[in-house]
Parts: sequence; C-alpha cells; structure tokens
Amino acid sequence: MQRRKFLRNAGVGTAAVATTGLVAAPAIAQSAPEINWRMTSSFPKSLDTLYGGAERIAKIVAEATDNKFQIRTFAAGEIVPGLQVVDAVQNGTVEMGHTASYYFFGKDPTFALGTVVPFGLNTRQMNAWVTQGGGEQLLNDFYKNYNIYGIVCGNTTAQMGGWFRKEINTVEDLKGLKMRIAGLAGDVMSKLGVIPQQLAGGDIYPALEKGTVDAAEWVGPYDDQKLGFAKIAPNYYYPGWWEGNAAFHVFIGLDKWNALPKNYQAILRAACADTNNWTAAKYDADNPKALRVLIASGAKLLPFSQPIMEAAFKATNEVYAEITAKNANFKKVFDSMMAFRKDEVLWFRVAENTFDNFMARQSAAGKL
Amino acid sequence: MQRRKFLRNAGVGTAAVATTGLVAAPAIAQSAPEINWRMTSSFPKSLDTLYGGAERIAKIVAEATDNKFQIRTFAAGEIVPGLQVVDAVQNGTVEMGHTASYYFFGKDPTFALGTVVPFGLNTRQMNAWVTQGGGEQLLNDFYKNYNIYGIVCGNTTAQMGGWFRKEINTVEDLKGLKMRIAGLAGDVMSKLGVIPQQLAGGDIYPALEKGTVDAAEWVGPYDDQKLGFAKIAPNYYYPGWWEGNAAFHVFIGLDKWNALPKNYQAILRAACADTNNWTAAKYDADNPKALRVLIASGAKLLPFSQPIMEAAFKATNEVYAEITAKNANFKKVFDSMMAFRKDEVLWFRVAENTFDNFMARQSAAGKL
Repeated sequence: MQRRKFLRNAGVGTAAVATTGLVAAPAIAQSAPEINWRMTSSFPKSLDTLYGGAERIAKIVAEATDNKFQIRTFAAGEIVPGLQVVDAVQNGTVEMGHTASYYFFGKDPTFALGTVVPFGLNTRQMNAWVTQGGGEQLLNDFYKNYNIYGIVCGNTTAQMGGWFRKEINTVEDLKGLKMRIAGLAGDVMSKLGVIPQQLAGGDIYPALEKGTVDAAEWVGPYDDQKLGFAKIAPNYYYPGWWEGNAAFHVFIGLDKWNALPKNYQAILRAACADTNNWTAAKYDADNPKALRVLIASGAKLLPFSQPIMEAAFKATNEVYAEITAKNANFKKVFDSMMAFRKDEVLWFRVAENTFDNFMARQSAAGKL
Repeated sequence: MQRRKFLRNAGVGTAAVATTGLVAAPAIAQSAPEINWRMTSSFPKSLDTLYGGAERIAKIVAEATDNKFQIRTFAAGEIVPGLQVVDAVQNGTVEMGHTASYYFFGKDPTFALGTVVPFGLNTRQMNAWVTQGGGEQLLNDFYKNYNIYGIVCGNTTAQMGGWFRKEINTVEDLKGLKMRIAGLAGDVMSKLGVIPQQLAGGDIYPALEKGTVDAAEWVGPYDDQKLGFAKIAPNYYYPGWWEGNAAFHVFIGLDKWNALPKNYQAILRAACADTNNWTAAKYDADNPKALRVLIASGAKLLPFSQPIMEAAFKATNEVYAEITAKNANFKKVFDSMMAFRKDEVLWFRVAENTFDNFMARQSAAGKL
C-alpha cells in the first residue's frame, strides 16, 4: 500500500508545490517540497526487526511530512547486494542506505567503530557516546571520506556468542575450530586459534550440518530462532563479547543530506532516534520468548568460561594495539570510545549493575 | 531567542496559511497550520536534563514544522506549581505538560506505574514494555480518565538510594529514620520503620543540615551534585531500588491531541522518542563525572546491605498486594508490567548482565 501510494503521488505533487510556491506561499513551498528517495538495506525482509527498522523510518518520515518526503525501502539484493550499501550511497545509485557500519570493515577498520567492537560499549553506553560523547561527530568526520552522512537508527542489544557443535570448555578447545564470524571479532578469534569463516546467513545451516564449520554466531534468540541451529549445533554460548551492542546506521549521500530542507533533516533525524529506541525495545521484548522456544527445541544454554573470556579480552587488546599503531582514523575514534567506556563502566558498577544483579538473583530464586 | 521568534511569528502566520489554503494549496494548509501551545514542566530550569528535555521536544517540533508548530516551555511555578501539571492539562490551562506521572500517585497509585515502581523495570525494560509490551496503551487507557494523552519522553536511568547522615548497616538502623522520600517508595519505607517526609527540592538541604530529616533521596550524581548534600549527609547509598528507572511523560489534553493534524502527531511523537534517547544518554554521560566530583568532595559510596535489599523487596510485595486488592486500575497495569518484568530479567541474566558484569570486573581490576 505504501508503494502504491508512492506511485500515485510521484510526479504530481512536485508541480502543485511549485505552483503554490511561485504564486502564493514561498516559505511553505521551500520547506515542504516533494522528495522521493530510495533506501537500500543490508538486510532481508525476513529479519523483521532489522529490515523493519528501515520501514519504520520511512513510515515516520512520510507521516510527519504528510507524504511529501517519501522513502522507498529495498531489501538486500533488490537494488544492490546487502554488503554494497556504502558503494551504492557513495556513487549515488541510491540516496540512502540502511546497514551496519562494521560490514565495511574491509575498506577501513574504522567502520567497525560505528557498530561495535569486541569488549566495547553496551547499548546505553553506545547511545551516550554517540549523542553526548562526541561519537556522532567523530564517526561523521570519518564517513565524510566516503561522501556519506550517518545517523544511528537501531541496536540489536547484547548478542549471543553463537552455536557450537561441541562444548567449548577451555581456551584449548577453540584451537582449530572453524567458526562463522567476521570482522574484528574474527581477527581476535584467530589469535585464539579459531579459523574464522565468512558465510552469508543462508549458507550457515548446511555448513554447520555437514561440519564444514564447527560453530557460527548470528544475532540473538529472536533472529537465531529462524535459522534452526539448535538441532545441529545445540551448544548456545553467551555472551557475544564481540557484540555488547550492535548499532545500525542510515547512510545518506553527503550532498543529498546537505541539500535536504532543515525541517526534513530534523524529521529524518527524529525518525532515526525513534527507531533506535524501537529496535532495541523490540529485541528486548522478543528475545525472552524466542529463548524459551529455543531451549524447548534442544538448545543448551552455556556461558563462556572465565578463562576463555579473559583470553579473548587479552587477544582483543593485542588486536587494538596493532590497528591503532598503523591506522590514525581508527585510533582517533577508538581512543574517544575507550575513554568513554572507562567512565561508563565505572558508573554502571554503582546503581545500574547493582539493581540489575539484585533483580537477577530474585529471578534465579523464582521470586519474580 | 526561541521566545522572541515565537512572539514575532504569533498571529501573523495563521493568516498567511489561511490565505494560501483558500487560494492555491488546500492540502498544505490543512497539514501545516500555525499552532502555538504552552507546555508547563514539573521541573525547575536548574535541572537541565529534566527541564532540558521539555526544551528539546519543543525545539525538534519547531524545526520539523519550519516553526509552524511552536511549543513554549515553562518551568515549574511560571504558570502553575510543578505538582499541578495534571490539573493544568486536564482543565485546559495549558495544552500540555512535562512531568513524572508518579507525582500524581495521590490521585490514584496507578499514576506511579507511568514512571517506575519499587523493584520494577530498568530503563531498557521500561522502553520495551511501553512500546512493545502494551504499556503505552494500558497507561493511556488510564490517563483517559483525566482527559490526558501521555507520551514517554525521557528517563533518569537507575537512581541512587540517597544521602544519609549516619551509616545504615542493618534493617534495624532504618527504624525511626526520618527520610525525604515520596509515593509508593514511602509506603514501602514505612513498613521498614522509616518515617517518610515530603519535601520540595529546595527545602531538603536545610532540613538535612538541622537534622529535621536524617536522609533524603533525590536522583543520581549529576542532579544531586547541585544540592550539596555531601557535606552534611555524606553516606551515599546505592541502588535506589525504588527507581530502577524513572520515565518522564508529556501529558497532552486529550481533545488537543485528537485535534492535532496527523503529521504533527507523528512529529511530536518522534520528538518525544528522540528526547527519551537523549535524556538517558545525557544522564549516562554526565553521571560518572559528577560521581567523581562528589567523591572528591567527601561523599562516601556505600551499597545497601543484602538484608536491607531483601527486607525492602518483601515489604514492596506486601504494598503491591494491598494496592492490587483494592484498586482495579492499578492491578490491570501492574499485572502487565510484572509479567513483562519476569521475562525481561530472565533474558537479561543471559547475554546482557554477563557482558556487563565481565566489563565491571575488568574495571575493578583497572584494566579498562
């Protein structure tokens, strides 16, 4: 219906507004032009919280502008493949994209900092760094090199550590393990002896089933449930220490963003903030139900052992030392994020974690 | 400046839009009328994160509508006292208010559920319940009795337990203690032998100094810092188990909300969601710095003992049993929130808390 309405409006409104503008009310015409943009997502429609975030942004923008600013959303592959969002925005194929910045880690590891890095911030801390700690400005100083303006617009919240065919009890158990894991986390895993594999979502199940890979990480219970890993790799580890949060962005062509009327900029920005709230809230609401279903279907919930966590933390710091030594872009953003992390974790240890841990104990005692 | 611009625009734009509407572009005139509203806040301007939230909502709405929908914000006392926001909105003195729902606990304890109740949800869980768990609808079904439409628009995050002249080590130490604490938390404290006192912000310091009260709770480090309690009641306890989060609302006259053009409704809603993000982020960013200053000026950071926490949890459940037995409004909203809490805490125990607690241990070990 959204699409039919879009087609009905296209081309007609522009003329009407132009006439109005010239004849009677220039201020109104300037601030409410008809604009039709395309937004290509890195996600398939089946990931309804992720792809649904793009749809929600488009819906709010359309409602807020009385359908004058219309954004059509396209799933991964409809215009360009999911991992070509940056290129498509940079070269003007589309006006905007919806993605996770860290997918473009291969262009420059600095892209990872726009989503999350191992042992980085949690969801609230990421929002605080982005909006209050200078993160938005630092990231956009970097994205500018790709003619892109970025706005944070969603979060998966802390992710799970993934699905393992066998139990992983010691650091030794990780050696030689073939695991579907990408980006910076893959580099950390390599230091622990894991052989990281890059696989698209649809290819993971057969690879796990055949034993081509021994383990795979995806998102969390709600998204993982759709892929059916519990039957073939039932050991479901937590936490995903490489994804204490995972932020999403809309990437907009810098010239397109700068040319947008100020009121449309304000609306798009507020729509992204609303969707940032909504996405985390939807994961928080849907994950517990999905986890229950997964456990009923055979998933075995297991924490990574402390020695594994400690070894991963140490390996992570080695990876950071290597990247910051040779990449000034990364170092600038990373140093800001890590200084912020230090303060945040110190404060969370006081009221926030103490409250959460007391409630967790009541839950464990069956008192909630 | 905002205010001067408002005065300049008032009354002029309406005529211009009406003319345009009649002559050339009826669709535009209908969706972009000049609207001037007043929003009265429960907070003084000195609480720049709370009152600043109201200012931010007004700013976003003005920007997004090219200054056609203007909301003037007023601090507590400028139009009506801070605790008369519901009355002022209900009787049409102002179109909207900015407040914490729980201030109106005296009218009906159900109002408390719009902000937070003892041992309730944390910030993320509250957002999830409001937007995904039916909370927004349930709260508005209740607010409707007061001709009010409510939208959540901010959060203090988990609060501190307050300032005590003497150390409180056992449940026995609470007996006879005169504490500035209000609402449902006051009822729980009464069961523990505390004598709750109602005092406005400005009256707390002299009362603590003279010993008229022995303890006082306020918000968290950033807001508490301004009141200077560290000098006179240095024992700074955590967590504020009665405020695992504290959500703010804009309350809008129901008829005013219903008459608002759909696009202005969408804009106001998105502005509130943006400000919801922003307020929690600002507290998360500002609290660690303030806590450091407080400790340097003599504050002694202390956790409530587990026996005190357990006794408070038990007393809280007694208070809930009493209220739900006699108040159907409360029971309906409360049952929804508590069922949601059970699922949320179960899920947070897995990835989220495990990640946070590992990071907390690294912080304690000086490794961040």
